[in-house]
Amino acid sequence: MKKCTIFYVSDGTAITAETVGNSLVSQFDDVEFTKIRIPFVDTVEKAQAAAQKIKDAYVDCQPLVINTVVDIELRRIIHSGGGLKLDPFNRLLRTIEDTLGIKRSPVVGKAHGVVDSESYNRRIDATNFALVHDDGISTSYDEADIILLGVSRSGKTPTCLYLALQYGVKAANYPLTEEDLDKMKIPDSVLKHRDKVYGLTIDPFRLSQIRSERRAGTRYSNLRQCQREVSDAEALFLRNGVDFLSTTDTSIEEISGKVLLALNIHNRLH
Amino acid sequence: MKKCTIFYVSDGTAITAETVGNSLVSQFDDVEFTKIRIPFVDTVEKAQAAAQKIKDAYVDCQPLVINTVVDIELRRIIHSGGGLKLDPFNRLLRTIEDTLGIKRSPVVGKAHGVVDSESYNRRIDATNFALVHDDGISTSYDEADIILLGVSRSGKTPTCLYLALQYGVKAANYPLTEEDLDKMKIPDSVLKHRDKVYGLTIDPFRLSQIRSERRAGTRYSNLRQCQREVSDAEALFLRNGVDFLSTTDTSIEEISGKVLLALNIHNRLH
Repeated sequence: MKKCTIFYVSDGTAITAETVGNSLVSQFDDVEFTKIRIPFVDTVEKAQAAAQKIKDAYVDCQPLVINTVVDIELRRIIHSGGGLKLDPFNRLLRTIEDTLGIKRSPVVGKAHGVVDSESYNRRIDATNFALVHDDGISTSYDEADIILLGVSRSGKTPTCLYLALQYGVKAANYPLTEEDLDKMKIPDSVLKHRDKVYGLTIDPFRLSQIRSERRAGTRYSNLRQCQREVSDAEALFLRNGVDFLSTTDTSIEEISGKVLLALNIHNRLH
Repeated sequence: MKKCTIFYVSDGTAITAETVGNSLVSQFDDVEFTKIRIPFVDTVEKAQAAAQKIKDAYVDCQPLVINTVVDIELRRIIHSGGGLKLDPFNRLLRTIEDTLGIKRSPVVGKAHGVVDSESYNRRIDATNFALVHDDGISTSYDEADIILLGVSRSGKTPTCLYLALQYGVKAANYPLTEEDLDKMKIPDSVLKHRDKVYGLTIDPFRLSQIRSERRAGTRYSNLRQCQREVSDAEALFLRNGVDFLSTTDTSIEEISGKVLLALNIHNRLH
């Protein structure tokens, strides 16, 4: 298999360059890509070091370079490394300028670095909220945007934290206990916020595997036990008209996106 | 100020489209952009609904549309809404094909939806690690990639969670207590992992403000107390040769990026 290197070079975190680049290289199954992030390139020295790394990576094929550095001189130095320039923005920015009849005002790191303090606070608040309302620790959900329900290890906690950090959304989670499942009843503290509730389920085999990594050979990780809990939880969702999705083959990004869409909640950060 | 709408339309989460779009519109200070995400557009009906929304948004200027939907028929329907097409990928993909002499194999949702189970597990493990090692709860750091030090509310917890979710990196955090600061000593449990340690500091005025939101009028949030703690913490970092940065005007993405760079830790997910 052909081996190539792709560089993500930025004057900021390189997250944007990386997001674009990963999306591009995912389209090519026949190439094995090595991905190298070079963030915070804001001096001539750092740009020269980046150019050298690019030069050194020229083995099997010309290295690809996604360069989101704004400063023209630094861009030139980086591209002296001889990589294939992939600029996702310049042409689009020109299209916007021409169509809207406006001019951009570029500043180093503008797209990445500037802290919007309202967004920052919202994010921190949402993260704290997720931590305090994780795993049924607190069940006062008046402030919650979302309450995720599901059995233990169905993916609730990472999803709630992701929702907080990525979208500034306050997501609580409540773990369906054996008692809830035996009674076939969602607790009133949750049910009274019916319109914020969303369910997560998971393939019982996968669940048993995940639980075994924590506590192998216990009732908790036993396949039959997992099957029973999952089937009870799904019955409980259906009986209460709670929408749910399976996390088995779904990334945290996708789970989060689908929950937001289902509950019609928007990004609180931008 | 001119008001425009930008749409992020995708057959997946729309995170890639949103990342690109936010980066683009951040370059234009003279336009107020309304941002609308339309994720999971994978049927003709959803594409038609998206086209209608785009049509309805045509008020002050032509709506901008970042469309990362792969299916050609769905793309066509979406663009029948009359928005300005901004395709960040097509031209770049063609450049890669021409240069590397390879062909892409596009599949709906490929760039977003496919779950790499190794990455998934690493991410969940890292998130659990961050939760268990948050705020000095557990101080066994053998498995840690990073140990963040700082006074209470300096930004340690959100950074650790972000590092886990975004990079699959295991980040612990230890809050410098008044006792540590009085003794002018970093605990041995932390110091024995010297090469994993990074410090966070913060402007004392900002710290006092943040702490006041939690506990107004207490010693904890008192400005003098915050000044003392911050100055002691910074002295402690300097004395022990611990690199540190200020979180005051720094986004979580940027803090995380800088810590990774300083400790030479790479993304564990891609």
